[in-house]
Amino acid sequence: MSLDDVRRYLIAYDISDDVRRTKVAKKLESYGDRVQYSVFIVDTRPAKFLRLRTQLTDMIDEGTDSVLFCNLGTLRANNRRSLDVIGCSRTITDHGPAIL
Amino acid sequence: MSLDDVRRYLIAYDISDDVRRTKVAKKLESYGDRVQYSVFIVDTRPAKFLRLRTQLTDMIDEGTDSVLFCNLGTLRANNRRSLDVIGCSRTITDHGPAIL
Repeated sequence: MSLDDVRRYLIAYDISDDVRRTKVAKKLESYGDRVQYSVFIVDTRPAKFLRLRTQLTDMIDEGTDSVLFCNLGTLRANNRRSLDVIGCSRTITDHGPAIL
Repeated sequence: MSLDDVRRYLIAYDISDDVRRTKVAKKLESYGDRVQYSVFIVDTRPAKFLRLRTQLTDMIDEGTDSVLFCNLGTLRANNRRSLDVIGCSRTITDHGPAIL
């Protein structure tokens, strides 16, 4: 799997129910890095991303919850400057894509 | 101001203090669209973005708060597919950049 196969995705959620929020957070923790309380960075191939998106769709209540996906491009093209944090930042792993 | 001058930024915050969080949210509401409770999309020129970034830096407590900035590229190059929401979504204005 080369850097050209892997894309970086930013995923943010707004979920009021504690049980659903915890389930979604645990799923995302298994795929990527938590950069804020409700924001994750996931480096993976598009096919695996679609599987994750489907799993999250099944977990949420589409009437009240929201999950935002932002495709930041290939890992190779991804410029470190495109993500920038002020204040108390968490580490984003840069050692390759998540093993799924 | 052409579409080539304008960039789309995703801005997300993690702020525990109610007063600071409200101040940051009000500032961001004056610049762009709220897409989730703590996630905004701002379309603006890089110079204006830097001014906003400085204002937010002055508002937060860098020891406890966090603001994440993600540069999504020029508005011209920006592909609608790069942002995708499942569930309950808010509208992102597409009629040009914020007037600052």
